[in-house]
Order: sequence, then C-alpha cells, then structure tokens
Amino acid sequence: MSMNIVVIGSGAAGMSAASAARKASRDAKITVITEDEDIAYSPCAIPWGIEGKTGWDDIVMHDAAFYKENRDIDVIIRTRVETVDGDKKEVVAAGVTYPYDSLVIATGGTVFIPPVEGKDLDNVFVVRTVRDGKNIQKALEGSTNVVIGGAGVIGLELAVALRDMGKDVTIIEMMDQVIPRIADKDMADMIQQELEAKGIKFVMKAPIQAVKGDGKVEFVTAAGEDYPCDVMIFATGVRANLDIPKMLGLDIGQLNAVIAAPTMNAYRRGRLVPDIFVAGDLVQCQSAVMPGATMSQLGSTAVKEGLVAGNNAAKGEKKEFGPVASPWVSMIGDLQIAGTGMSLGLASWYGIDVVCGKAEGLTRARYYPGGKRLVVKVLADRTSHRLIGAQIVAGEDATGRINWLTSAIIDGKTAETFMVDSENAYCPPTNMVRDVVLAAVEDLCLRLKQ
Amino acid sequence: MSMNIVVIGSGAAGMSAASAARKASRDAKITVITEDEDIAYSPCAIPWGIEGKTGWDDIVMHDAAFYKENRDIDVIIRTRVETVDGDKKEVVAAGVTYPYDSLVIATGGTVFIPPVEGKDLDNVFVVRTVRDGKNIQKALEGSTNVVIGGAGVIGLELAVALRDMGKDVTIIEMMDQVIPRIADKDMADMIQQELEAKGIKFVMKAPIQAVKGDGKVEFVTAAGEDYPCDVMIFATGVRANLDIPKMLGLDIGQLNAVIAAPTMNAYRRGRLVPDIFVAGDLVQCQSAVMPGATMSQLGSTAVKEGLVAGNNAAKGEKKEFGPVASPWVSMIGDLQIAGTGMSLGLASWYGIDVVCGKAEGLTRARYYPGGKRLVVKVLADRTSHRLIGAQIVAGEDATGRINWLTSAIIDGKTAETFMVDSENAYCPPTNMVRDVVLAAVEDLCLRLKQ
Repeated sequence: MSMNIVVIGSGAAGMSAASAARKASRDAKITVITEDEDIAYSPCAIPWGIEGKTGWDDIVMHDAAFYKENRDIDVIIRTRVETVDGDKKEVVAAGVTYPYDSLVIATGGTVFIPPVEGKDLDNVFVVRTVRDGKNIQKALEGSTNVVIGGAGVIGLELAVALRDMGKDVTIIEMMDQVIPRIADKDMADMIQQELEAKGIKFVMKAPIQAVKGDGKVEFVTAAGEDYPCDVMIFATGVRANLDIPKMLGLDIGQLNAVIAAPTMNAYRRGRLVPDIFVAGDLVQCQSAVMPGATMSQLGSTAVKEGLVAGNNAAKGEKKEFGPVASPWVSMIGDLQIAGTGMSLGLASWYGIDVVCGKAEGLTRARYYPGGKRLVVKVLADRTSHRLIGAQIVAGEDATGRINWLTSAIIDGKTAETFMVDSENAYCPPTNMVRDVVLAAVEDLCLRLKQ
Repeated sequence: MSMNIVVIGSGAAGMSAASAARKASRDAKITVITEDEDIAYSPCAIPWGIEGKTGWDDIVMHDAAFYKENRDIDVIIRTRVETVDGDKKEVVAAGVTYPYDSLVIATGGTVFIPPVEGKDLDNVFVVRTVRDGKNIQKALEGSTNVVIGGAGVIGLELAVALRDMGKDVTIIEMMDQVIPRIADKDMADMIQQELEAKGIKFVMKAPIQAVKGDGKVEFVTAAGEDYPCDVMIFATGVRANLDIPKMLGLDIGQLNAVIAAPTMNAYRRGRLVPDIFVAGDLVQCQSAVMPGATMSQLGSTAVKEGLVAGNNAAKGEKKEFGPVASPWVSMIGDLQIAGTGMSLGLASWYGIDVVCGKAEGLTRARYYPGGKRLVVKVLADRTSHRLIGAQIVAGEDATGRINWLTSAIIDGKTAETFMVDSENAYCPPTNMVRDVVLAAVEDLCLRLKQ
C-alpha cells in the first residue's frame, strides 16, 4: 500500500517538499492543500511584477495542472485547513478528510502590521502574494504619492520599482538606517544615498503612529508629522504562521517559530515527532555562527528545507538541513547589497564582541573598462577570531562572494585560517588579481592583533 | 642595524614580496633587481593591451620612482643577476654586490617554445612581457593572417583580441580540445563553439612541426598541412626559471620547479634554508586535492605567495601559504570559463577515479530579464566522495562561484557534506532561488550512489 503525504502550504517550501517527496517515492499519494490561488510563485519577484519588468504569469512558475500532469501531485487551491489531528493522522479541509502517513507543514508567515489606527483603510497593502501585487498595481493607477512602511530589502526594492514608475515615494523607518538588523549602518548608508539620489525620500527614526483617511488612506503619521499618500504599503517583516503547529501541540521556540530537527521533523514536548515535518518561514533554525536559534525567512532557505522535509517525509535516503548563516542579496537600483551571518546589530543581541575589517576595490582589474565599485566588510569574534559575518555592496558580482564567505562562516574558520585557505580566480575582465574579499579579511587580521 | 632584503624579479610575486617586506619592517633596506624594463605589470592584461582596450601605461601599475617614493624600495631595472652566493649571502648584478639577510627569488617562468625549425624567424612571438605585447602590436600593423600556437586560455584570449581587430586567426593545438589539461572537453567545447562562431579557425590534434619563411614567418606546418601567416604567436605554456635556484643548490621537485615550505622558504637537500624565499611561477605547490605536488602558475597565486615570502623575509609575524586548488577564470568573447582543483585529465594523471555531476541554469531568476546561461560541473573522488574539482561556463558571475567551490575543495568536503553545509543568497536580479552550484552537487550526489 502506498503512503499518503499531505503538504499544507504552496510556497517555495511546500512545493519543494512535494516535488522532493515525488523524487523519493514513485507511488506515494501526494496532496498539497493551500489557501493561495497562485502556487509555486516567487514572492521576491513581486516588486518587479508591480513595475511590469516581469509578467505576473512568468513569476508563477507552474499551476496545479502542471503538478498533476508532470509529478502526479494533487494541489488543492483556495482551501483553508480547518483541523489537523495528530493522533488520527488526518487533515480536514473544506469538509474533506485527508489521512496522512507523513505531514509537511509549510504555511509560511504573515506580514506583521503594527497595531495602529487606520491600518485597514482602503489602499493600505502588504506585499506577500501575487494577489497583493496585482491589487497594488491597480491602486497605483492614477496615484502619485506612495508611503512605504519599513526600509528592509523588500521595502527598498519596492521603492525603486515605484520610483521607476514615476511615483513620489517616501519610506518611513523606525530605526536610524535602512536594512536594519541584517546590515550595518556604514554599508546600509551607501544604499540609502543611492536611493536618495534617485529622489526617494526617507523619514528615519520614525515609528508609524497612525494611518488616516476617510475610507481610503490620505496620510500616514510618523514621529508627529503627517505624510500625505494615495497608497500605503507595509513592508514591515514577517511573523511565522503558528495556527496549525499550535493545533498539533508542536514545540515553539524562543523566536516564536517552530523548532525543527536537522531532518526537518517537528518536536512535541522535546521529543521528535516522526511523521510531522516543517519547512519555510515558520521554522526556527540553528545558527551556524554560535550555538542557538535564529530566523532565516529566505526563499533559498525555504527551498532547501522543503527538499529535506519532502524527501524525509517520503522516506527517501535520509537528508539533513544544517545550521544557517542565511546569506541574502538584494539588487537596489544599480547596487547590489549582500550579507551573511551576523551584522553588528545581531551580534550585540547575542553579546558577541566584534572586530571588523573592510576593503574597497573594483570588480575588474583597475585598467579593464567597466569595473564597478566593490566594498567588502567582514566581522569576527574578538575572542575566538572566528568569522561571524560579512556584507558586500557592489555594482556586480556580490552573490558568489557572499556564498563563499558563508562557507567560511559555516565551517567556523578564523580570519587567519581564511587567509591561508582561500584562493581567488583572476582574469582582468572579471576580478582584481587579489579579490577584495581577501583584502578585507587581511584588514580584519591586522585589527584582531591590535 | 637594519636588515638587507634582496628580491630578484619584478612580476606580481616579486613586487608583492617587496611591498609585504616593507609592511613588516619599517627600516629594512629593500632592493628589487630585475631584467624587465616594466615592473609590477599584469601579464594577463597583454591581450587587451594589444587590442587597445587598455593602454600600456595603465597595465603597468607603478614604476620604479613610485616604489622609491612611496615605499622606499629600490628597483633596479634592466639588470641581470650574474651570481648569487648563498654562503657569503651576496647577489652580484651588473658588477655591483648586494649583500642580503633575506633573499626572495621571484624570477618566474619563460614561455616554452617547442624545439621546431624556424622558431626564431621574424614575426614569431611569445606573450609574456609588455615588450612582447608592443612588438606583437607593431607586427600586426598591415598583417592579416595570424597563427596562434596553443589553445590555452592566453591563446584563446589573444585570438579573440586579434579577431576583434579584424585579423584572420587560426589556432593550432596538439590536443583534441581547447584549454586542455585544466578544463574538461564538454566544458571546453562550449568555448570552442563560441570562438568558431566568431570566425576563429581551429586546427586540433596537430602538433606544430615547423615554422617556415624567408627571414620572416610565412607559414606554420602542423599535422602535415601548411598554414600561411604574417605573424605567429606561441602561447604554449610556461616553464620555471631555475638558473638562480640551481646556482644556489636549492631543491627542485618532480615537476621541475622549486620546492617551498608553507613559509615560502626554499630547501637544500631536504633542509629548510632560513634566509632564502621563493614565490611565483617557479614554485612547485602542494595540492589541496591530494597529497602531492602541483603547479599553480597564476597571477593570484604569485601575489599570495609573494605576500607570505616578503613578510617572512622581513621577519614579520610568521605567515603561511597553504595547499592550492588553483582556481582560474578567463573571459573569452562573451563567455566566462572558470575552473578549480582537478580536471578529468589531471585526475587521470593522479590515478583518481572520478564521478561527475552537472547542472545548467541561469544567472538570474528565470523570469527576470537579462539572465545568462550558467553551466556548472563538479567532480568527486568515487571512493571518498570528496570534491576534487569544478568547472563553470557562464555569461557572467563565474568568479565568485568558483572561489566558493575552491573553499569546499580545500576544506576536503564531500559532495554530501557540501549539500548540508552550503547556502546561497538569492534575489531575482542576481540568482536563481537555488544556485546552479547546489543543483550540480546534488546531481553528483545521485551519481555517487549509482
């Protein structure tokens, strides 16, 4: 008798899990149940979808028919799971009961909206689903002023997209820098300057106090000032969806997300639950930088977790998901900013005493035409000299470099070991003879001696 | 009393050593003696210099006056070292005696020219120095047909430059593929096709038998056929310059290059010589892939070795140079090709049984405009599952990825460990949600099970 695998959620984690389950088992019955209408889409693409740089159909990679036809996976859309019973091993949705041998919970997160007056007015949005993107696009027709709440990467990417569409864009941010939490102020300020040069306005150190208007948003109040707007978009971070995990009594960690084993199994009262798996934005990960929990609400993390969860749910040859440094990258206007491991801000939360190194150069040999600015910053623990984080701002080629530094962090390398162990490829059209990454770590080594 | 440091050679290794020595010691007397007239230039830049994409002055980064003024380093150009006495600790050049406390030998390599008839005819060149580049540039005026001997990266880069100048270019290669030795045929063939589409002609499996002409080259004979040409350029690899090491009785290894300790000290009869250091193309390196020797005649290696040699020569806080995977990259037309560790060819020399994985994707999300093709191949040892090599052909962003894979090889990771340990940054304009590197290693894991 073939096994039943039920996946709840159809984002990157859920659909990766379903596909990996099929790879591991030819005859399992695999069912995905989702509230969404668009499945397997890339939420990171929504800013470019709003701008029209990519079509909405392009960012939704496959529909339910594709999954049925090509992978024999049943995807049930627009359907809310009502109950899950961990003893009977049953999911009930829209009155139908789905028995499971393995369950994968991949219900993601929800945009956190601060509990302010007026947040439910018309033309106030979040950016999460394709539906959100289409609604924003429609509201922007004939609109001029847009306020974005939150200067994280999604907020900034969105600001550039809207600015390129000719809108007046104001970003309101609680902290004193853009990309707070994961980027350091010196690196983030380069991005903010780039955006200010494009005409995007910033209101910093200003918590949003109210959204006001008569039926429809008219202005946003922050730090005592009113900012008029036709459209207001919250890009204020994502909180794990815990309804189903709580229904099942699964262990929730200190970061208010589900605790998972390396196999992506959930726990109940400290004990692994062999038939329940979790993946994606609702999971609390192990940090690769130091023993302890961290959040890694990234598309790339969701896919990797999904592949492990789905494979293990289908009883494929056991796979594991390791501790994370959570590398990220964003293209904001003409600049890429990328980071990995801990920022100064995160390190201070963990009580780590940090020493930084920094170097600047180009993405090509100095004499080769078209080279772009490349700034690399690296962070180490003052006591152990271990690399704990890195950030890059560059005109191109940030992604590979941040993945390289991520490896070093995950492997627990010290700055000094990195200097001995690391080599870089070189040719004038693609790099300097000595990569700026090495120059930054060398600067760090010098500062660690002081 | 301050110490005397003498550096022989003014390439990337020599000048890095001299500069590192100055960083480590404020008061050492540092003298560089070189046969070259241009110092601290980038030999990798010569193809672009010939084409005029970069000026000759730009690729010579600094002159002797710069080193004297900014780093108090005496650079004596156009001067051949006659004798070195390791007992008296003296270098004699142009009749002047230079006593040393530490000696750095960085005399590099010489282009190997097969011992064929006519190799000394006019308009027959090698590509090594700026002078070579200028001479080639002059000879190309009014010339139409150019034959390049050797389809290594320098030969190919040169072929593109000359083709872009409107020349008829024929490459003659002994082996059955371009970039033999360090690239696998399947990856190299993509590059060859790209160049053929540009109108560059290839004559494969054809050792050069003779260069013929009346005073000046008129044709090249290979595999029994004559190829007419106005200019012939040998790009046939580099052999270590061993005159000075042999004069000093230093140990030469099985690859006919100088054996060096991790500190870059030379050896004599198996014993480390504390006051003699080597760096650059004349050094035999330790392989990071398996115990044993390998050559790493790369600009990036030369700089790294030079920095260690110069620092230790000046008695700075001890530094070490580690085993190498020797990542390399080349931009050939619109394609980048990069590699690290062992190719199939090299692995067979070492008797390693190899399993390969491969994946293809794009450099951006599928729906994001402007993404370029990205092919990643990874090689593992069938017995240990350790990653031993990787190659990339891509429209962009090969460099950072190859450095990332280089770290994994140097750290001795297995394919399976790499899958658990590695994360990739993602945003639609700079990457796919799952980097093609991870897809290639996953393919490798599957094949390792078979």
